[in-house]
Amino acid sequence: MKLEAVSSTKSFDGWQKQFRHYSETLQCDMRFAVYLPPQIEKGTRFPVLYWLSGLTCTDENFMQKACAQRMAAELGIVLVAPDTSPRGEDVPDDPGYDLGQGAGFYVNATQEPWKQHYRMYDYVLKELPELVEQYFPVNDRRALAGHSMGGHGALVIGLKNMERYTSISAFSPICNPIACPWGEKAFAAYLGADKSLWEEYDATVLLSRARERIPMLVSQGDADEFLEEQLKPHALQSAAEASGYPLKVEHHAGYDHSYYFIASFIEQHLRFHADFLLRG
Amino acid sequence: MKLEAVSSTKSFDGWQKQFRHYSETLQCDMRFAVYLPPQIEKGTRFPVLYWLSGLTCTDENFMQKACAQRMAAELGIVLVAPDTSPRGEDVPDDPGYDLGQGAGFYVNATQEPWKQHYRMYDYVLKELPELVEQYFPVNDRRALAGHSMGGHGALVIGLKNMERYTSISAFSPICNPIACPWGEKAFAAYLGADKSLWEEYDATVLLSRARERIPMLVSQGDADEFLEEQLKPHALQSAAEASGYPLKVEHHAGYDHSYYFIASFIEQHLRFHADFLLRG
Repeated sequence: MKLEAVSSTKSFDGWQKQFRHYSETLQCDMRFAVYLPPQIEKGTRFPVLYWLSGLTCTDENFMQKACAQRMAAELGIVLVAPDTSPRGEDVPDDPGYDLGQGAGFYVNATQEPWKQHYRMYDYVLKELPELVEQYFPVNDRRALAGHSMGGHGALVIGLKNMERYTSISAFSPICNPIACPWGEKAFAAYLGADKSLWEEYDATVLLSRARERIPMLVSQGDADEFLEEQLKPHALQSAAEASGYPLKVEHHAGYDHSYYFIASFIEQHLRFHADFLLRG
Repeated sequence: MKLEAVSSTKSFDGWQKQFRHYSETLQCDMRFAVYLPPQIEKGTRFPVLYWLSGLTCTDENFMQKACAQRMAAELGIVLVAPDTSPRGEDVPDDPGYDLGQGAGFYVNATQEPWKQHYRMYDYVLKELPELVEQYFPVNDRRALAGHSMGGHGALVIGLKNMERYTSISAFSPICNPIACPWGEKAFAAYLGADKSLWEEYDATVLLSRARERIPMLVSQGDADEFLEEQLKPHALQSAAEASGYPLKVEHHAGYDHSYYFIASFIEQHLRFHADFLLRG
């Protein structure tokens, strides 16, 4: 696996970088962003927080707008943000903002024309960490977080692979995609008509079946324009209560779906993950 | 003067807002952004930091990328960011990114076709503060800061109107526009061929002639791609040394011209201004 440097910018005494590589999983070139905290120059290895962004985003939105670098620098955590879908002229797309490029939904597609490239689940779970662990001074402690569609991705990938992550968190996640318009459209296209197969990518279903526990924090603004129709945090909370899962959901009065919400609480999320990432 | 609300988003327990109004000075509709810290609800009046952005920017870049709201909320300072030029289909423009819309250079143009609309100096100095002081719970303590072309604007407007501001600061400012390509192109277009008239908008010239003093902080990255050709902080420093002006210029190793640099040091700039804005 080869990495090509795209950009490098100093940030909070560390380094904000972008790289391009050919993804075997996605069968296309992919770009991702990395923040290396200043302690990196001391030669030790650091834990990684993977951030999954939402619809229409690239690897850049989180790094430019969340101001997560300040706390990552203070705590000594590497940040990695992949793109939100495969990309390129040869990659199938859709005119809608909520399907195709920019809208990979972190699943492995099984349907035409998507199944060759749209394998973001495997990319985030396997290929990207392999690359990061090969090229950067990181250890094997990983946390997972995301926003909206990326919050869905973080919850699903984390719940299905608890041994791989220390902790998961999400801002404004799509909690129950099998029962909301965004999820129904994307899952029908990527996964086909059999809805029983969709449940493997639904955080509410997965949490209701979870036998093990991984620390999990969800933050949700109560002025979020997508709250009731698309996000459905109460479905996740009900599943947690029914199964006794120690899920922490925080509802924040007045906050909406934007990066202004994320910037306001990213310090709390990074400190939450640091408690587990930096432990022993 | 009438204000039309454009957006309102909660941020760090305060409010990030945008407004539109018809500007008599610029003879067009203008949009600006305001951050109101959470203390605003207590009913007292707060000081204002005006932020002037650089080439190609709007009222949004600083508010989305600098993460200044965190410290503004902590310190109790209102942030105001205007657009960087007049805007609209009826407003003259130029194909270059460094002239016309998005590139007002904070001057009052005297030449055709610019002179009707391009009066950003008066807009920032007079009309915008009048609006802000009419509509928001602010007092008459104002500070001025900016980046690149906006750093030039902050230094020039501050040096020429010391009685109006408590303090001025700039990231990567165009320090000597009469002697760099960006400034020569813009000033020739907006101000005409007589270069002696350009000096009224050149921070290095103004500082060399300054009789009074206003606290002034300049931050500059030494990996800035525009440092030598366009920005010329050493010209400003030489003028300060020659005239005994207590200018503080900080050179930061490895930092470039981007908002990642601003985000890294905005806390320092806000604390610098707070020392004067919140005094007495």
